[in-house]
Amino acid sequence: MIELQLIGIGTGNPDHLTAQAARAINEADLVLVPRKGDAKSDLVDLRHGICAAVLTRPVRVVEFDLPVRAAGGDYLGGVNAWHDAIAQAWAEQIARHLPDGGRLALLVWGDPSLYDSSLRIADRLRHSGVAISVRVVPGITSLQALTAAHAIPLNDLGAPVVITTGRMLRAQGWPEGADTVAVMLDQGSAFAALAPGGVTIWWGAYLGMAQEALESGALEQAAGRITRTRAELRARHGWIMDIYLMRKSRPD
Amino acid sequence: MIELQLIGIGTGNPDHLTAQAARAINEADLVLVPRKGDAKSDLVDLRHGICAAVLTRPVRVVEFDLPVRAAGGDYLGGVNAWHDAIAQAWAEQIARHLPDGGRLALLVWGDPSLYDSSLRIADRLRHSGVAISVRVVPGITSLQALTAAHAIPLNDLGAPVVITTGRMLRAQGWPEGADTVAVMLDQGSAFAALAPGGVTIWWGAYLGMAQEALESGALEQAAGRITRTRAELRARHGWIMDIYLMRKSRPD
Repeated sequence: MIELQLIGIGTGNPDHLTAQAARAINEADLVLVPRKGDAKSDLVDLRHGICAAVLTRPVRVVEFDLPVRAAGGDYLGGVNAWHDAIAQAWAEQIARHLPDGGRLALLVWGDPSLYDSSLRIADRLRHSGVAISVRVVPGITSLQALTAAHAIPLNDLGAPVVITTGRMLRAQGWPEGADTVAVMLDQGSAFAALAPGGVTIWWGAYLGMAQEALESGALEQAAGRITRTRAELRARHGWIMDIYLMRKSRPD
Repeated sequence: MIELQLIGIGTGNPDHLTAQAARAINEADLVLVPRKGDAKSDLVDLRHGICAAVLTRPVRVVEFDLPVRAAGGDYLGGVNAWHDAIAQAWAEQIARHLPDGGRLALLVWGDPSLYDSSLRIADRLRHSGVAISVRVVPGITSLQALTAAHAIPLNDLGAPVVITTGRMLRAQGWPEGADTVAVMLDQGSAFAALAPGGVTIWWGAYLGMAQEALESGALEQAAGRITRTRAELRARHGWIMDIYLMRKSRPD
């Protein structure tokens, strides 16, 4: 039996770790750290740093190569095939390092509930016949790291919020029925397709990390600045993770 | 000058506290703990318990009476008047305990960004002439505590999510454009007004606390069970905080 612990670690700031997360890491028999290629080796180092900071007993920390997502083609089909490959990679690591079962911990960026696929991959593992129980330890999401960095509320008083992706925003425009939209997984400037009048944007990259960058303002003025800053930072660091919140002003 | 720290403490489990939150509490000159009447004295005790658990130096922890919201009348108007009264109560505590300025910490349930009014009240304080800077320390939200407890993702793959209130759900029905809806601040069973077919619900109360209660299932079957459980628990404990997520199944 594999007891899988999906542990939210926040957005790269080791101080985002909760007491519950620190304990769960210490209770593991094995921590798996995904390698995502040279450009993202910062993220491998960061997970090792978190383990080193919180471990008070010897726990095996093992790196493995995360399969690469095939480019092009049908988006959802491509993602599903990729998740199949990751489940296969987890199964191989489990067979090698925990042949008699035990506690497996995965350190999940942000929180395992929010635009993360670990829970879906764990389902695949279960369906493929691995005896597995899953426990989730919540972590600080990039959305909260963003609103905290800008010291803004997510929602207007009593009002709804839509959380969506850059891909959906580009395809469908401003979502119906909400004046506040949080956008994740934008590969670049989906906001440029919107009518900018009356919209304020709060953007953040590398939230909580030493490289943290913030921009905000009326979308009309900020859009170009954010697009340029994002391109510069991505070139400088070799990777970027960013997120933004937009709010339409209501007539008073 | 008042340096106000709004510190997210998660949903009542002291282990939800991040390292950043523990440090911010220790760096305060004053922690204000709101008293919300006898029924919610659990929540006062909980904040004192958190302070006792994390403080490594002497920090003044002071209780004050939170003004009560007037019942009835216009909802938004009533909330705005209540926030004015809370800002006034904060100002009085500041004048009494930090007459020469200093660091004031408030322990915010969940995270200060999500259906919490501390940021709006801080704005009122600033506009009333109190020299104030605001820093937010993110915390685990009830939404993440819910998805973690049920070990479910918030979103379907690449799909949007609407976060809304019981009041909005009752007034407007299922939000446009999303198959997943998270509902907060529901005074009771707003889901009962929906067509239940094809909807799954995951509900949680007192998330992360010793009293934690979870229910889930097809809305058709679960709705009555949740309504009964909620009423029983509320009667037993004198107060309740709950939240739920609903998802429409997509045709495969």
